[in-house]
Amino acid sequence: MKLAILGGGGVRIPAFIRGVLASGAAAFDEIWLFEPDELRRETTGRLAVELGAALGQPGVVRLTPDVEEAFSGADFVFSAIRVGGDRARVIDEEVALRRGIVGQETTGPGGCAMALRTIPVLLSYCDLLARCAPGAVLINFTNPVGVITQAVSLHTSVRVVGVCDTPSSALDRLARFLGAERDRVAFSYGGLNHLGWITSFAVDGEERIGALLDRYEELARFDHVFAAFDPALVRRLGAIPTEYVYYFYEPARYVAAVARAGASRGADVERLNSELLDAIMTAFGAGGVNDAWAAYSMLMGVRRDTYMRTDTEGENQQAAARARRRAAGPADPGRGRPDGGRPGGYEGVALQVIDGLTGRSPGEVIVNTRNGASLGFLDQDDVVEVPALVHGGGVAPLAVGPLPRSARGLITQTKQYERELVDAAVSGDAGLAALALALHPLVPGVTVAREMMSEYRERHGPHLAYLR
Amino acid sequence: MKLAILGGGGVRIPAFIRGVLASGAAAFDEIWLFEPDELRRETTGRLAVELGAALGQPGVVRLTPDVEEAFSGADFVFSAIRVGGDRARVIDEEVALRRGIVGQETTGPGGCAMALRTIPVLLSYCDLLARCAPGAVLINFTNPVGVITQAVSLHTSVRVVGVCDTPSSALDRLARFLGAERDRVAFSYGGLNHLGWITSFAVDGEERIGALLDRYEELARFDHVFAAFDPALVRRLGAIPTEYVYYFYEPARYVAAVARAGASRGADVERLNSELLDAIMTAFGAGGVNDAWAAYSMLMGVRRDTYMRTDTEGENQQAAARARRRAAGPADPGRGRPDGGRPGGYEGVALQVIDGLTGRSPGEVIVNTRNGASLGFLDQDDVVEVPALVHGGGVAPLAVGPLPRSARGLITQTKQYERELVDAAVSGDAGLAALALALHPLVPGVTVAREMMSEYRERHGPHLAYLR
Amino acid sequence: MKLAILGGGGVRIPAFIRGVLASGAAAFDEIWLFEPDELRRETTGRLAVELGAALGQPGVVRLTPDVEEAFSGADFVFSAIRVGGDRARVIDEEVALRRGIVGQETTGPGGCAMALRTIPVLLSYCDLLARCAPGAVLINFTNPVGVITQAVSLHTSVRVVGVCDTPSSALDRLARFLGAERDRVAFSYGGLNHLGWITSFAVDGEERIGALLDRYEELARFDHVFAAFDPALVRRLGAIPTEYVYYFYEPARYVAAVARAGASRGADVERLNSELLDAIMTAFGAGGVNDAWAAYSMLMGVRRDTYMRTDTEGENQQAAARARRRAAGPADPGRGRPDGGRPGGYEGVALQVIDGLTGRSPGEVIVNTRNGASLGFLDQDDVVEVPALVHGGGVAPLAVGPLPRSARGLITQTKQYERELVDAAVSGDAGLAALALALHPLVPGVTVAREMMSEYRERHGPHLAYLR
Amino acid sequence: MKLAILGGGGVRIPAFIRGVLASGAAAFDEIWLFEPDELRRETTGRLAVELGAALGQPGVVRLTPDVEEAFSGADFVFSAIRVGGDRARVIDEEVALRRGIVGQETTGPGGCAMALRTIPVLLSYCDLLARCAPGAVLINFTNPVGVITQAVSLHTSVRVVGVCDTPSSALDRLARFLGAERDRVAFSYGGLNHLGWITSFAVDGEERIGALLDRYEELARFDHVFAAFDPALVRRLGAIPTEYVYYFYEPARYVAAVARAGASRGADVERLNSELLDAIMTAFGAGGVNDAWAAYSMLMGVRRDTYMRTDTEGENQQAAARARRRAAGPADPGRGRPDGGRPGGYEGVALQVIDGLTGRSPGEVIVNTRNGASLGFLDQDDVVEVPALVHGGGVAPLAVGPLPRSARGLITQTKQYERELVDAAVSGDAGLAALALALHPLVPGVTVAREMMSEYRERHGPHLAYLR
Repeated sequence: MKLAILGGGGVRIPAFIRGVLASGAAAFDEIWLFEPDELRRETTGRLAVELGAALGQPGVVRLTPDVEEAFSGADFVFSAIRVGGDRARVIDEEVALRRGIVGQETTGPGGCAMALRTIPVLLSYCDLLARCAPGAVLINFTNPVGVITQAVSLHTSVRVVGVCDTPSSALDRLARFLGAERDRVAFSYGGLNHLGWITSFAVDGEERIGALLDRYEELARFDHVFAAFDPALVRRLGAIPTEYVYYFYEPARYVAAVARAGASRGADVERLNSELLDAIMTAFGAGGVNDAWAAYSMLMGVRRDTYMRTDTEGENQQAAARARRRAAGPADPGRGRPDGGRPGGYEGVALQVIDGLTGRSPGEVIVNTRNGASLGFLDQDDVVEVPALVHGGGVAPLAVGPLPRSARGLITQTKQYERELVDAAVSGDAGLAALALALHPLVPGVTVAREMMSEYRERHGPHLAYLR
Repeated sequence: MKLAILGGGGVRIPAFIRGVLASGAAAFDEIWLFEPDELRRETTGRLAVELGAALGQPGVVRLTPDVEEAFSGADFVFSAIRVGGDRARVIDEEVALRRGIVGQETTGPGGCAMALRTIPVLLSYCDLLARCAPGAVLINFTNPVGVITQAVSLHTSVRVVGVCDTPSSALDRLARFLGAERDRVAFSYGGLNHLGWITSFAVDGEERIGALLDRYEELARFDHVFAAFDPALVRRLGAIPTEYVYYFYEPARYVAAVARAGASRGADVERLNSELLDAIMTAFGAGGVNDAWAAYSMLMGVRRDTYMRTDTEGENQQAAARARRRAAGPADPGRGRPDGGRPGGYEGVALQVIDGLTGRSPGEVIVNTRNGASLGFLDQDDVVEVPALVHGGGVAPLAVGPLPRSARGLITQTKQYERELVDAAVSGDAGLAALALALHPLVPGVTVAREMMSEYRERHGPHLAYLR
Repeated sequence: MKLAILGGGGVRIPAFIRGVLASGAAAFDEIWLFEPDELRRETTGRLAVELGAALGQPGVVRLTPDVEEAFSGADFVFSAIRVGGDRARVIDEEVALRRGIVGQETTGPGGCAMALRTIPVLLSYCDLLARCAPGAVLINFTNPVGVITQAVSLHTSVRVVGVCDTPSSALDRLARFLGAERDRVAFSYGGLNHLGWITSFAVDGEERIGALLDRYEELARFDHVFAAFDPALVRRLGAIPTEYVYYFYEPARYVAAVARAGASRGADVERLNSELLDAIMTAFGAGGVNDAWAAYSMLMGVRRDTYMRTDTEGENQQAAARARRRAAGPADPGRGRPDGGRPGGYEGVALQVIDGLTGRSPGEVIVNTRNGASLGFLDQDDVVEVPALVHGGGVAPLAVGPLPRSARGLITQTKQYERELVDAAVSGDAGLAALALALHPLVPGVTVAREMMSEYRERHGPHLAYLR
Repeated sequence: MKLAILGGGGVRIPAFIRGVLASGAAAFDEIWLFEPDELRRETTGRLAVELGAALGQPGVVRLTPDVEEAFSGADFVFSAIRVGGDRARVIDEEVALRRGIVGQETTGPGGCAMALRTIPVLLSYCDLLARCAPGAVLINFTNPVGVITQAVSLHTSVRVVGVCDTPSSALDRLARFLGAERDRVAFSYGGLNHLGWITSFAVDGEERIGALLDRYEELARFDHVFAAFDPALVRRLGAIPTEYVYYFYEPARYVAAVARAGASRGADVERLNSELLDAIMTAFGAGGVNDAWAAYSMLMGVRRDTYMRTDTEGENQQAAARARRRAAGPADPGRGRPDGGRPGGYEGVALQVIDGLTGRSPGEVIVNTRNGASLGFLDQDDVVEVPALVHGGGVAPLAVGPLPRSARGLITQTKQYERELVDAAVSGDAGLAALALALHPLVPGVTVAREMMSEYRERHGPHLAYLR
């Protein structure tokens, strides 16, 4: 079984490679990392390859600047590209934040600009993939996952599954909070990527959502992800929103928090990633894979520890995270995690999809896929984020029970924005792109949408030059 | 047939009385103006009564500070009250505008605060009405019409019809633009009060909505009401929004315009109304009904001419309007308009409802009423704004064709806000009121909603003291 | 205003002409009767023309064998044709009854065969009409009204309204039973032609459907139309079925009743009509219009009095009806009915449609028209039978409230049969016609549907020769 | 893990026991057969117990006349009872067939009478189970499975899953026909028990339903189950009906076939079962378990081979089946089938449910369960037959894509019949039972439904005495 990874030099790749090889989570004969950027190949790319060898599986991980080589004969392709790099993300966020509007990687104007840069590039990779490996399944993590998956689903012949770990991670956390075994849980979840709600959570057939809502303050203390929401609002909804819904429920609080912090998450990540590549380069110069892994895992840990802190708390808390991580000492690349090192995050979800589709372990996975009849208030060909049975025959969405009405309203509007945005990207129509943006619930009107779109086109130069 | 008017000293009442009596539009034997405020009774109230006499119908119009006297034996009741007066409206708008949020009489936080002040008062009038005149029909103009009508519909036994002339006026304007006879038009319109779209406009069986969209720039020049919208957006929607949708499609532009103008519409109206009462008082002191009518009609003309100017153009244009009106000279209370003086505006729509319900002239009227099966994506007991057949048997909503999906999203969210708001007002729960406000599409989050609700409660004193 | 009547020599035409001219119900300048059959022209046709003169309006009613002359410049066209005549109806019924299946003019196999004979003929008239009078509105009474209107609506450019008086007549009867004024009634009715239910009946805003259901036995004694239904079933449904639903709720009882009577309604009508034409011919030979009218009105009275008697009671009761009518003595063509002679029946409904569309008297009429959003469980372009606002702009269906679930099931199946049947007729595909018939709820399977379709094709000769 | 079987002396039980023990399909520590009938205990019951010993697992299978002993501590309960025995089934069928109406075990009047006998009995077992083993899951095969599962689901606290192998068996057959691996198939199936359609059948992501429809004649020759349907009808539907839909698509053909055969399937089965018990008794008398198994498996084979032959072909073909089976020689109870003897049929489906719910092998199983949002046109608490993900958390229905409209009509009507029938059984209201029956699509009216219900009550004596 061959896996190809678009964006093979991404900063999460070494951790994924280590996890998948150490745990035997999936049986890949070859993992091809496609990375056009030389610096990335020499740092994260090299680290990934050498980790393979350190784990006793030399030759499995391969690095290439040639996408056709990566695609050829692939069974699965991961897409984790970032067109324009971290710099573009900073611009995406700034243009919105300057106007007091949510400036965020995936939600609102930032996600819109990112999608516009990405769709033409990914569609052209899909054309190539359809020729090189017609049966391959594309597992998309590229953000904004919902929009990108929608574009591939409507405009290519490639089989695509969009993956994000936000909802499954929330469910895991709820199970931990209740002390329940995760596989005795029956839940109801639905919406779009980064805009989904959990409306039912039953353990051994007994509904516990009421208990979770009643004890929401306690839950928020147990896990800070839930602390972003007003407990009374959550109780009134009768449903637990997943973390990115924060940008819809608290846009003004978010904008104020970023202003207080002095820098957006994008700016922090840009700095962290730059430091990371330098550190890996230095480590390879001085020592070898062990030093590189130590530097890598420390900085990735800081990144993880500070996730959403700026947005909800108004400071990035990097200093504290660094101190904690340094005190914990270096990680050993050969030592697995308590769970055997099976990759978590979205790569973990992707492996579940692969295990389902190959028939190795069919089961329920929350994915971004064509709606069919899953959410009755959306269209059949809308891409939605819902639990699906993933098995040898494919991906079959479950029937999702009723969502809160206000959630249906937000989802309906946001899906329409997504569909219009895909139309704009595919037609290369800048005016349509501005109108799409104007329909986003977080954008205060057409006039300001047109202004932002102009600014994005100016500042993103060649990446948006196709819009006319 | 007896009509009672709650808010009988309102500034629009003299014009309505003159119109209805001069045109014979409806056959009222008695029109009772209930007005608790003495100044209003001595100015607008007195003007209305004396206009009746001047038009040769003395005794038809009656003024009273006693609501039971007004209600007793009434067939129809108009509700046009403003709890807290013009001052409260100014506060409603300021609290939002200070935060860069739409501050408007009916839409957004302003409408929320107004509804919270009004619902308990109107529900208590309804209890009285149910005792004094159990068969009476309440025709509600009190803003926000959708929310107030929803509250009466859910929580009283009174038959209620909410009325607003926004959509019918838009349809009249479109017919004029096309040079079509209004009664050869078949249209499709639907939504909520101040949140509705026209999706079809056929003349003699031929669909013209495409032509209207194609010629939208020309239409916007023909009638400035349509100029508030971006023509490309309207074409992409495939539907013509009614004027108040402006606040949803251009919140940032609106906030900037008010800032440029230096005062909100509410502040302008407060000043105009104060001037109006003074001028009537002075005119009655100096002369009589003719002078009072002249002063009244000049200032009401200025008010009408400057409608929405601040919000869309950033200046109120009062100076120009006053100059034009003064140049046109005084109006004669006995002289009818070319159409025989039949009242227009929402009072005109109300008379159509009355003519339908009495069987005098059954026909199609756009009203705010229980949805039933009219808009398939809303609940049966949601109050919606749709065309209905109004006849001797009652009000029967037409089946409304598909709305643009983004409109469905906005309507769904806004209806949920309205339902939560009614729950908050009826239960007197301040926390619930803040959560309701947080669900409004124009409010950027729960935290800011809680802040605004605190400020409203503080500044509106006794009017919101029931919220705990 | 010009009216053209397809089937102008039909037996109901003289009564209609007399009604419309005597009552001034609509202001026709010309009424053209198109009748290709010479015998009909010399009997019923001549009677209609002479009635016009007898009522002091010579020249208004015109008789022609030339359809283009009739259509040219027409504003409205009535269609009341019977392809194959009364004989064909007898065959339609026999083929089904022989197999123990409902054999009825409009419902089940009989209606299927009739539709197959009629659709090609009427579609070709519509092509001609679209050329001769492009703005004309076709008001269709030709049975089965739902299927025929569906065919015209889908496959021609002619504006069509299907009309049947079954539901309005039921509503009138219910109002009479309750002693209510008909125009104070708000009702809910919906379904397909000859397959509709009344689910709400409010008088002056007060719901009375519960009372009607509770008193159903009394209602059935009051009016024998309601006696066809099992009171307990009606109560359990919570809705009052209209009379033709009898064939769906009591097929076995119906088949047994016809067997007991020894002849179907079709056979009775064939004999009555033959007698009628003879009698008119004889009367014109012997005397003049007064004698012809007397003979005509006696036999038409017998026909009306015996309506549905065979089907529900197992005997046609003609002898009793004749005796009663003879005892009552001859009618005077110049003497109006108490209500001024305004035509009732489906012609009366048609005049309401005309009065609405011309703007003379807009209002609510139950019609067969495109569903739009009226019945949420059917498609937009399905023709349904629902109340609509008929006005100068056109026909706008009302939103119809929930129907009993079992009714929705029957309607869904029957509509699908109708759509398939129209496809079969338009494509001329005999196999498809048999499959369509097999989907009818009263047909016990495909095999028997194929057998009946073969027999229809054989026995109807040229009329079904186009099916291959 | 303890399994209890209601109806533990049923004729299918020995085969099930042998299959489950020989194959190790599920890990039962104890299987308790509850059987109140002594003859059954001494024949089929004894055979089941001795097969356990013959397979080297003595003590696992236990036989008891005490239902509390069987239930106590059970994890799963199978229900396969037949209230009134085979004789009652023969009556069920006769009463309908005498009137030319489908007389069938589960569909139409026969199923109605069976449900009425069964519901009170099973509900009372459920009360007991809720006390003896509150967490147990009831897996119901008792026919009519849809109605019985609906009753348990609405009126008890017991977790219930209804199981039938009709749809999964059809899918297996289609896969065999196409030469596809069953676990590479993604399908769409939905409806009610014995009223379901397959609308999609994709192999490795490629849709093959079109090919199956095109080649339907070939498919019908490949497997006689599909031969019951008219190929042109199936193609027009665009969906493959499952076998019991035959009674809806060909009632007249079925009634004629049974008349031709001279006896219904029920009568054949009654004779076969009687012969079977005699043969086992004789075999145990003469020899032992091997002889008993040989006699048993020969007669069960004849039963299987003649399934649906009477209904579709008009003769039961028993003679030929017996000859074939005799020629094949006796079966060996210790010899597994090629697939290791894993039980097929509905017991096989039940084991899949158990394997899913215990977490041993989560996956997709077609079950009868609460609809939730699976079929959008039915209610949330309607029991439907759809694919579901069965896992440790419970049973989660998949979202089922669009069904043919005529199928939706039949399902809607039939579901309403089922709901009314459950109401009748639970309230013990004979009148309501007749009205429920009248709503069944195969019953020609209320009058005949009342007649049949009277006859059922008379002939079933004590079993229906609770209806008043």
